[in-house]
Amino acid sequence: MNGDSGDTATAGQSAGPLPHGGDLDTARRTWPQAPLPWIDLSTGINPWPWPVGPLEPESWTRLPGAAALDALRHAAARRYGVPDAGRVAAAPGTQALIQLLPRLCPPSRVAVQSPTYNEHAHCWAAAGHEVTAVPGIDALPDGTDVCVVVNPNNPDGRQHPPSRLLELAAALARRGGWLVVDEAFADTCPDASVAPAAGVPGLVVLRSFGKFYGLAGLRLGFVLADTALLAAVEAALGPWSVSGPALEIGRRALEDDAWTAATRLRLEAAAASLDADLLAAAGLEIVGGTPLFRLARTPAAATLCGALAAAGLWVRRFPDRPDLLRFGLPPDDAARDRLRQVVRGTVWRT
Amino acid sequence: MNGDSGDTATAGQSAGPLPHGGDLDTARRTWPQAPLPWIDLSTGINPWPWPVGPLEPESWTRLPGAAALDALRHAAARRYGVPDAGRVAAAPGTQALIQLLPRLCPPSRVAVQSPTYNEHAHCWAAAGHEVTAVPGIDALPDGTDVCVVVNPNNPDGRQHPPSRLLELAAALARRGGWLVVDEAFADTCPDASVAPAAGVPGLVVLRSFGKFYGLAGLRLGFVLADTALLAAVEAALGPWSVSGPALEIGRRALEDDAWTAATRLRLEAAAASLDADLLAAAGLEIVGGTPLFRLARTPAAATLCGALAAAGLWVRRFPDRPDLLRFGLPPDDAARDRLRQVVRGTVWRT
Repeated sequence: MNGDSGDTATAGQSAGPLPHGGDLDTARRTWPQAPLPWIDLSTGINPWPWPVGPLEPESWTRLPGAAALDALRHAAARRYGVPDAGRVAAAPGTQALIQLLPRLCPPSRVAVQSPTYNEHAHCWAAAGHEVTAVPGIDALPDGTDVCVVVNPNNPDGRQHPPSRLLELAAALARRGGWLVVDEAFADTCPDASVAPAAGVPGLVVLRSFGKFYGLAGLRLGFVLADTALLAAVEAALGPWSVSGPALEIGRRALEDDAWTAATRLRLEAAAASLDADLLAAAGLEIVGGTPLFRLARTPAAATLCGALAAAGLWVRRFPDRPDLLRFGLPPDDAARDRLRQVVRGTVWRT
Repeated sequence: MNGDSGDTATAGQSAGPLPHGGDLDTARRTWPQAPLPWIDLSTGINPWPWPVGPLEPESWTRLPGAAALDALRHAAARRYGVPDAGRVAAAPGTQALIQLLPRLCPPSRVAVQSPTYNEHAHCWAAAGHEVTAVPGIDALPDGTDVCVVVNPNNPDGRQHPPSRLLELAAALARRGGWLVVDEAFADTCPDASVAPAAGVPGLVVLRSFGKFYGLAGLRLGFVLADTALLAAVEAALGPWSVSGPALEIGRRALEDDAWTAATRLRLEAAAASLDADLLAAAGLEIVGGTPLFRLARTPAAATLCGALAAAGLWVRRFPDRPDLLRFGLPPDDAARDRLRQVVRGTVWRT
């Protein structure tokens, strides 16, 4: 694995932390003269967050309670289409679950559909499993016990139909293995989710709260699985792992049907507009994405990334795929205008 | 280990979650007719929290950044008297560290000074270590690799001088072991802390943010240790383990010298008043505690606990020490009056 390759890494082990989108501190250090404020387009986080109002004082002051956790689990089950809240466990961010799952699994052969979010391969390898990067799920290496699929995938948006994923989960379950489906970006395409099947043998689904709801700082994620695995997850996380504010905000936001429906439409429209009016209009080829981010190809990617940074715009690049850039959604007209200006000027000039 | 015995358990393994203070849901279910609001005196959490004002929107919306984490680590080092912020790692609550440490340690013989907060023995045993409850630290069993001491202790407030703890850490380090000092309640007695020695071989110090600062829902704790252990902790927790609100609030509160100094005095005065004017005045014997909680003995403990609960007051009892009750600080005069009324009436009557 290329430990420098951010979230397009292929599978394997790496020492030290991996680079990720959202690391604006690096941008600030490298381009100290860039105009402020920085516009961070390097993540797939909704720039129009669910509106956090004043919280119950007890969410801050008390140890998070069992009743609040149970209410959150029910709200998540309803939102994600899981028939039984007993198939849902909460965690302080999906990353905590990605760290944890490999430790709950006996030594395994793990196939990670790649390129993808590179913490999966990193964490499985760090826990001592044998990790292989695979280009797809149709011809897994002999002896594969665990398969990891981000669906829709990051950064290219590739999707497998739920029926195909459930077939694979059943096949892996027959040998005692798991299919891990990371649905970090599935909120905009609920029909693509396997969450309604949560609890069937071998299926482990991860859901992120912070991306679609625009509250990545809150740290909240969910695992949907059979009760034995959930019990092991909860025992490993220990009591009070999810903060009081995350319990309250998570529940209220997941229950907010009107905001959720409107946000799906808003994100789809914004992504379509980013493609058509801005990226494609400037000559970039859109090669994938989800409504929360777009993946574009251009021979000018390196030049463009530098020009954007110098102009205070931070996008995601991929050291092992230097022709690709990933764009999050510009939060407002000012950001769109700055982005348009640099993209047009740079791509057309090169 | 008695798995039902709450935080006075002796060492050993238990299936399922352990009971803790702060579990008001249980009280509500068991005494549905109690007058509202419930007054929770079952924890050692400061009832006068550091005042959380409006947060930076980015604390909610962005992935927690490296610069904010670094600023928090510096604030913690300064507050706890650690000369080098490189000896400090943050976690989403001390409990997350209690869960984690046993997994970072080879199979060991672990001595836990008991009775104490029972998650220590539980987590070491659950990770497969050989755990023994010891009454003190002066005559550890032969072959002890790891010793765990809560200092000052919960629930009895017992303290060992820093010099004695550092001797023990050095002795354990010579055999490759650790002394884990959980300083969850040391904020009120900074001279009793071994944090200034953080980084010496064998010493692992845990600090809780939420108790003294009255923000237990935030989930924030620290481990102070040598860089090798901190690197292992950080690798196991993974990126973004501490929420954005915890980074911001933690830093601001830890930097607040005036509030911290005033709160130490306020807690000491409140504890002294709880003892003298209320518990001892009603015939209870004060047998220990810290300024954040008081441990009292009375033959009427069981009766008193029930009478308090029926009156909407929840205190901590200890199934294996039925003559003891632990009292947190009443938050206001109304709570003090309700507490006084029940304690006087019950203890004098029995």
